[in-house]
Amino acid sequence: MDDLSNGAAWIDGTILPISEARINVTDWGVTHSDMAYDVVPVWQGAFFRLPDYLQRFTASLSALRMDIAMGPDQIQAALHRMVGASGLHSAYVAMVAARGRNPVPGSRDPRDCQNHFYAWCVPYVHIVKPEIAEAGTSVWIAKSVRRIPQDSVNPRVKNYHWGDFTSGLFEAKDKGFETTLLLDHQDNVTEGPGFNVFALFGDRLVTSQHGVLHGITRQTVLEMAREMGLTVETRPLPLEEFWRADEVFLSSSGGGVIPVTRVDERHFSNGAPGPCARQLRKTYFEWLMKDALRTPLHQV
Amino acid sequence: MDDLSNGAAWIDGTILPISEARINVTDWGVTHSDMAYDVVPVWQGAFFRLPDYLQRFTASLSALRMDIAMGPDQIQAALHRMVGASGLHSAYVAMVAARGRNPVPGSRDPRDCQNHFYAWCVPYVHIVKPEIAEAGTSVWIAKSVRRIPQDSVNPRVKNYHWGDFTSGLFEAKDKGFETTLLLDHQDNVTEGPGFNVFALFGDRLVTSQHGVLHGITRQTVLEMAREMGLTVETRPLPLEEFWRADEVFLSSSGGGVIPVTRVDERHFSNGAPGPCARQLRKTYFEWLMKDALRTPLHQV
Repeated sequence: MDDLSNGAAWIDGTILPISEARINVTDWGVTHSDMAYDVVPVWQGAFFRLPDYLQRFTASLSALRMDIAMGPDQIQAALHRMVGASGLHSAYVAMVAARGRNPVPGSRDPRDCQNHFYAWCVPYVHIVKPEIAEAGTSVWIAKSVRRIPQDSVNPRVKNYHWGDFTSGLFEAKDKGFETTLLLDHQDNVTEGPGFNVFALFGDRLVTSQHGVLHGITRQTVLEMAREMGLTVETRPLPLEEFWRADEVFLSSSGGGVIPVTRVDERHFSNGAPGPCARQLRKTYFEWLMKDALRTPLHQV
Repeated sequence: MDDLSNGAAWIDGTILPISEARINVTDWGVTHSDMAYDVVPVWQGAFFRLPDYLQRFTASLSALRMDIAMGPDQIQAALHRMVGASGLHSAYVAMVAARGRNPVPGSRDPRDCQNHFYAWCVPYVHIVKPEIAEAGTSVWIAKSVRRIPQDSVNPRVKNYHWGDFTSGLFEAKDKGFETTLLLDHQDNVTEGPGFNVFALFGDRLVTSQHGVLHGITRQTVLEMAREMGLTVETRPLPLEEFWRADEVFLSSSGGGVIPVTRVDERHFSNGAPGPCARQLRKTYFEWLMKDALRTPLHQV
């Protein structure tokens, strides 16, 4: 049996090593990507903003009309037990609801399926390596794909429909870029694989409101920015305007605020992380330790 | 151990009962719906058009840049062995390629993943129950969602991004309709969950060419229609034009040709399957028995 510190899962009330955590291949979660998920960070012994993540996850379940027969308290208890068993001090914790298998052979009625919950955790994930994030990362604007529109799949219901992101990632990696950013069909900047995008113009901070996940880290950035005295604008961000930004950065529960120094062939903030992005990155790691935002892991 | 006749799977060279066929929850196939699949029917002891299905599956793998380290011959051998072991005479046979787990913790590079193949089969699936298909089925045009555009996720690479279909299915079932049909963002008729859509105008048969899977059953319908002397038009099918069709029907590897007698509140072909749809349905089941199109199951 694997060491649980490589990652653990909670499946049907049982704690398993991550390598043994599996879902049936005929689950609609697999065959229709019919899942909602959320990812809450655990940082130095405590969940960060756990009630906010649980609230969003619960909202996703409602939107998808899933009933997992577990309320937020039971979900929270499962997460505590799983992370506690793993012994991880800082972790990336996924909670997942899947439509389930359809007990009626050949039935295409989603209402027949047996919805279920599972969770898993691995050591804390930085979606961009910290040393790259510190120096400022590079982003490729995908040319071959557009972000799935919100009237096809709702991005505010955190979901695994990542085909567009994956196409963009292949483009980016082939070109030697760290990650990718997708446009909508009207040439507005949306989001990338696992992150929201911000552009700073003087003291105005702009990020998209439509066609994107309303990230909890995005929300944290907006709160920190207001505290710093910035004006916040959540609205469409046309690519044409984006090019004129003074600073660009990403936000993710997997690494906080990630300064961007290059998009395609264009360098931002003189090729180094801008002062605002640097400050927000620093402040985010401070906020991760704020008692008011932390839910300490239960002692096992 | 379950009876394999309920369904069997081929995973890593092992034959398992379907209830034990699982994939890891951290596989990108699950967490990014990063999979290609195909479904070939087995009908009364033989695969139907197996080379065509294998060719499309192989093309999907190339499009997604997956390397499963198995060629068509090895895939075919795995399918023969699995279906043979199940003892099923008529079956729905899925072949799946998944991006796999990323051995580099936290890596977002799809090129790092270990792609893999698996397969599963269950007793033959009719996506619409035969008795309903015979009498003509009802279809609801989804109002809350549009089909994911082809420049976001390529529908010709058969994939599990079904969020739009599932939303449409909930709408349809709530309204008492059998299934759903999605429009693109330009108000053209596209496809539904597991089927292509056809409209007949006099002796002209129209089906969409863009924004849809190029179904093997769709292809079979086009071939049968030409043999029947119909003119075939593969082109955008505006909803406005669709309403004026003399007959409407669906095509799927799960049930062949399925006449439609009602779309929303509109009845087609006087509320009964049209003569052309009925003829095509009959001919499809005859073609399923055509030696030239069949690959008999190996004797086990």
